[in-house]
Amino acid sequence: VLRAAWDIASEVGAGGLHMEAIARRAGVSKETLYRWWPTKTEVVLDALAARGTRTIPLPDTGSLREDLQQFLHSTVDSADGTTTHLLHALAAASASDRGTAILVRDRFVETGRSALRALLRRGVARGEITSRRAELAVDFVFASFWYRLIFEIGALDYEWAESIVLEIAGAAGRAADPEA
Amino acid sequence: VLRAAWDIASEVGAGGLHMEAIARRAGVSKETLYRWWPTKTEVVLDALAARGTRTIPLPDTGSLREDLQQFLHSTVDSADGTTTHLLHALAAASASDRGTAILVRDRFVETGRSALRALLRRGVARGEITSRRAELAVDFVFASFWYRLIFEIGALDYEWAESIVLEIAGAAGRAADPEA
Repeated sequence: VLRAAWDIASEVGAGGLHMEAIARRAGVSKETLYRWWPTKTEVVLDALAARGTRTIPLPDTGSLREDLQQFLHSTVDSADGTTTHLLHALAAASASDRGTAILVRDRFVETGRSALRALLRRGVARGEITSRRAELAVDFVFASFWYRLIFEIGALDYEWAESIVLEIAGAAGRAADPEA
Repeated sequence: VLRAAWDIASEVGAGGLHMEAIARRAGVSKETLYRWWPTKTEVVLDALAARGTRTIPLPDTGSLREDLQQFLHSTVDSADGTTTHLLHALAAASASDRGTAILVRDRFVETGRSALRALLRRGVARGEITSRRAELAVDFVFASFWYRLIFEIGALDYEWAESIVLEIAGAAGRAADPEA
């Protein structure tokens, strides 16, 4: 079902993504589809979360700087046309309705936040970052991602990734200032 | 016209905000209204920007920490129900259409960014923050604001303001680390 939804979104865009088309492509009955995913938004959330888990692995190199760089580079790489299109649709739906916002937060936004939080906590354990800054960094990374995506503030590219790595983990070759 | 748009949005919500109602309330012809504001989005952008300029003054106390705190506190104070409602509508419109996103960015988002940038540059001139961090701070403040607003990530309150002040300007009584 998630694969079918992705394929349809890639081929015809989020506008052509209807429950009936998803059921037909996935070869399941509409009853089955609705039992597991009551709304189209929920199919999109799960399809994006599943793809994110696959395309954005959680590195564990022993260095906060290296882990963060790999995580952000794969985040940049995974933001292809279909993904961006679906993320725009989720942002629009979230901004329009508080219930949808909470659903999107709990079922999708939180997936990425948990992954990044785990990565940063290893940095906290190694003394590379304080726990206060680690929690702030989770907000900063994803807030910046969505802000750029929604308002065309700037590109989501490796340069964006590097500016975040520099801010959170400090310059290469020196540890981040534990006081900062 | 901007005042009329604001009053209607306060009374009946963004859903009841139509060009005809704005023209009637403002006592101008529809021709005049459309000549200056071709779309409802543009009326909302200018109404919000005008209100922001009035309710979020740009402090100049001689201290980055103090300026930032005042700026963020008035940002929190100005986010009342009508404002939040209109900001949600702008975010939904921006996420749905790239042309609208650019309009919203240039005509509204950039107003707040310019104000905050001016405040931070005075901090750069006084040696309280590096110019690299000042530019990043502009993104961080507004990205965090919209992220919380759209996805219900957390409250936009004085605690949020304090965590940002602490990160950007350091703890009270000591200068921010110029290396960080």
